[in-house]
Amino acid sequence: MGDNRILSGGVNLQISEGGGCQKRDWLWGVPPCKPTGMHVPTLICRKREGEELSAQEIAFLIDGYTCGEIPDYQMSAFAMAVFFQGMTPVEIAALTRAMMQSGDCFSHRDGRLPVVDKHSTGGIGDKVSLVLAPLVACAGCWVPMVSGRGLGITGGTLDKLEAIPGFNVQVGLDHAAAQLDDLGVVMMGQTERFCPADKKLYALRDVSGTVPSIALITASIMSKKLAESLDRLVLDVKYGSGAFMQTREDAEALAASMVAVGQEMGVEVHAVLNPMHEPTGRAVGNALEVIEALECLDGGGPTDLRQVVLELAEKIAGVSREALESLLDGGAARQRFDRMVAAQGGDPADLARLHEIHRAPIIHEVVANSAGVVTQVHAGMVGQAALQLGAGRAKASDGVDFAVGFDRLVKCGETVREGQVICRIHARTDEGCEMAEAAIRAAVKISKI
Amino acid sequence: MGDNRILSGGVNLQISEGGGCQKRDWLWGVPPCKPTGMHVPTLICRKREGEELSAQEIAFLIDGYTCGEIPDYQMSAFAMAVFFQGMTPVEIAALTRAMMQSGDCFSHRDGRLPVVDKHSTGGIGDKVSLVLAPLVACAGCWVPMVSGRGLGITGGTLDKLEAIPGFNVQVGLDHAAAQLDDLGVVMMGQTERFCPADKKLYALRDVSGTVPSIALITASIMSKKLAESLDRLVLDVKYGSGAFMQTREDAEALAASMVAVGQEMGVEVHAVLNPMHEPTGRAVGNALEVIEALECLDGGGPTDLRQVVLELAEKIAGVSREALESLLDGGAARQRFDRMVAAQGGDPADLARLHEIHRAPIIHEVVANSAGVVTQVHAGMVGQAALQLGAGRAKASDGVDFAVGFDRLVKCGETVREGQVICRIHARTDEGCEMAEAAIRAAVKISKI
Repeated sequence: MGDNRILSGGVNLQISEGGGCQKRDWLWGVPPCKPTGMHVPTLICRKREGEELSAQEIAFLIDGYTCGEIPDYQMSAFAMAVFFQGMTPVEIAALTRAMMQSGDCFSHRDGRLPVVDKHSTGGIGDKVSLVLAPLVACAGCWVPMVSGRGLGITGGTLDKLEAIPGFNVQVGLDHAAAQLDDLGVVMMGQTERFCPADKKLYALRDVSGTVPSIALITASIMSKKLAESLDRLVLDVKYGSGAFMQTREDAEALAASMVAVGQEMGVEVHAVLNPMHEPTGRAVGNALEVIEALECLDGGGPTDLRQVVLELAEKIAGVSREALESLLDGGAARQRFDRMVAAQGGDPADLARLHEIHRAPIIHEVVANSAGVVTQVHAGMVGQAALQLGAGRAKASDGVDFAVGFDRLVKCGETVREGQVICRIHARTDEGCEMAEAAIRAAVKISKI
Repeated sequence: MGDNRILSGGVNLQISEGGGCQKRDWLWGVPPCKPTGMHVPTLICRKREGEELSAQEIAFLIDGYTCGEIPDYQMSAFAMAVFFQGMTPVEIAALTRAMMQSGDCFSHRDGRLPVVDKHSTGGIGDKVSLVLAPLVACAGCWVPMVSGRGLGITGGTLDKLEAIPGFNVQVGLDHAAAQLDDLGVVMMGQTERFCPADKKLYALRDVSGTVPSIALITASIMSKKLAESLDRLVLDVKYGSGAFMQTREDAEALAASMVAVGQEMGVEVHAVLNPMHEPTGRAVGNALEVIEALECLDGGGPTDLRQVVLELAEKIAGVSREALESLLDGGAARQRFDRMVAAQGGDPADLARLHEIHRAPIIHEVVANSAGVVTQVHAGMVGQAALQLGAGRAKASDGVDFAVGFDRLVKCGETVREGQVICRIHARTDEGCEMAEAAIRAAVKISKI
């Protein structure tokens, strides 16, 4: 099993490129469907009773489920048993590996440059990836960043990128390989054949009440990231009102689980815990967040955004913080971002006009009713308001409105005068704007000094 | 909801009979399929977190599952959550009621005679029902006994009855109603439309590792029994090596759960705990058990069998133990059994010749190797051996061999001489007989005095 399965069962795909094309190959593999000799109800019962399953047994379950031999009703019962009994790090690694190997995997043969990536568990106003990916590429890494779309109050990197006219997030493996070789960075969505086990299992968990399992969350995240054949991965694990994990304890447990799986699988994994009590930066909404990310790529932007970018990049880039800062301040990162936009179908000239391209019909300033110090900007409430404005999706099949959202949000600890702007609302309708203003007034607390 | 649903949604079926046919009606009802307004994943999550669901929510899940609106994969995850979190008596009663109302229900309108039944959780050599049903009918009760088939080491009443040539266990509701009116007793299998929710859920639990849940076992048993619209029910809850519940503690928990549900639903439920360390009586196997039951119906037979019959019958018959004993000893119970056989397609004259009709090719006596006192007749091992001889089913689609099994088994506490018969094997093949002898020698322990 293990890597052999990919190599023997897979197709060796040679990518022809303009440059030094011989220096690496890309492999993919879909495991043959051969779940035999094990009894699924017995495996479910053993997990139900808290036993540790072997890597072979876990691979049998995942392979059988992926190819349809094992039905949904057995996998959902298994997932519920895992919710209650958990899994050991060795089991989670086996689950991660089995899910990773259910579809396409990148394989970088020569290993000349470190292959790195960053994953965030999702937050409000989190545009870190847009800055970090080109920045780390400038530092001499390959960043094959596979991202997702937003759901609920959490935005998605793909949605933000698509606010750039023409930007194609479905580039396919061959394009991705060539672009990586050329620029060191590609930001893309999953291909059809990328982690199909995870796609199927995630959809099942969503409708069977088995989402909040540390073991299953770990395997879902890590299978997709490790299918990129990474050398190093940094995880931005958020907690608080705007995050999936509400408490620091839950975030620590998830972080520890992901780091342990990385160790089991021979990948250097760093986890950074970040509170998500207030949104990251001052902008929430697709185009508005891209604009803020561009400010950061130009060496400016909100302090908290820059700090998170640098903190995470430092873990994987292999260069000093000072070097990373000069890549931002000297324009290298922004230049790399522009080249990526061009390589993926966009026009870098559009970036300066994004606020015109996606101009909401209503732009309304919310002002402070009294002077004081900002003691709360409730991330969850801001996220909910952005979702209701149309910036996010209530369900997966919804579209997103690129123009709507918030910018110029105050930050905790700032002092404000009476009448000072604490937020700007970008809305499609008057009703949306009114709802958003009420939400912002509830989310932002200003205490008298 | 509740009974109204059956009455309003059902078809009022008038049974025309020879005798006093106007004195009651039989109703059946299939609830309309209308699961609306509730979110299944939310209900699963609430149960997963240990919350109590309302009767409406439980009925929504069961109705939706029965009619196919709620898929297997949600119900199996729900069942696993119930395994871990359990259910309150009120919830189990709601589950029982919803499953009961998923199909046909008897309803006895006049209530002139008490309607009673007995259920056993299943054991080795358990032929109690064959004696108890006609006995209690003689005492002036109606006994609409719906039974099941054997699976695994546990025999089934329907299989035993079918060892009587011509005996029809699929008589249908109209025949059953007429026979009850005439004889006070009918022994039959489930109709197609009897508790379809239980049929579907039981099959799902079997393949999803969710069988051993007290809440789900309780609802499965009670829904089928209470669909007979009983006034009184006695439960024979077995524990030990030959029973589903291995320990007395588990049996007590199940008994308490079933009694509590009976209270919630206004039915008088008695539970009797009986050890199943050695088989009931001296015979194991379909025809062999019928022969032993006939001995008991004639006032004879093994002491332990007669005691269990009387103990259980006393709880529901409404007459004294002495009255029940005289119904056995005076021939009334046997006569009622014979009339039932005739009413359901058999010939009572065959009963005296059962040992000839189902004569196994090999009948082999196992003798004691040494003198002593019998300290063990391991019920589970005897049951396994009977299953391997062909008396039971390894899977539901298997047939059973009426002739094979054991009789003249020694009982714990008896003293035996060297060379004395401790068991007689009825086998189809030499190999089967050898296997069975080895099993009996392992199951029966004789200690020197």
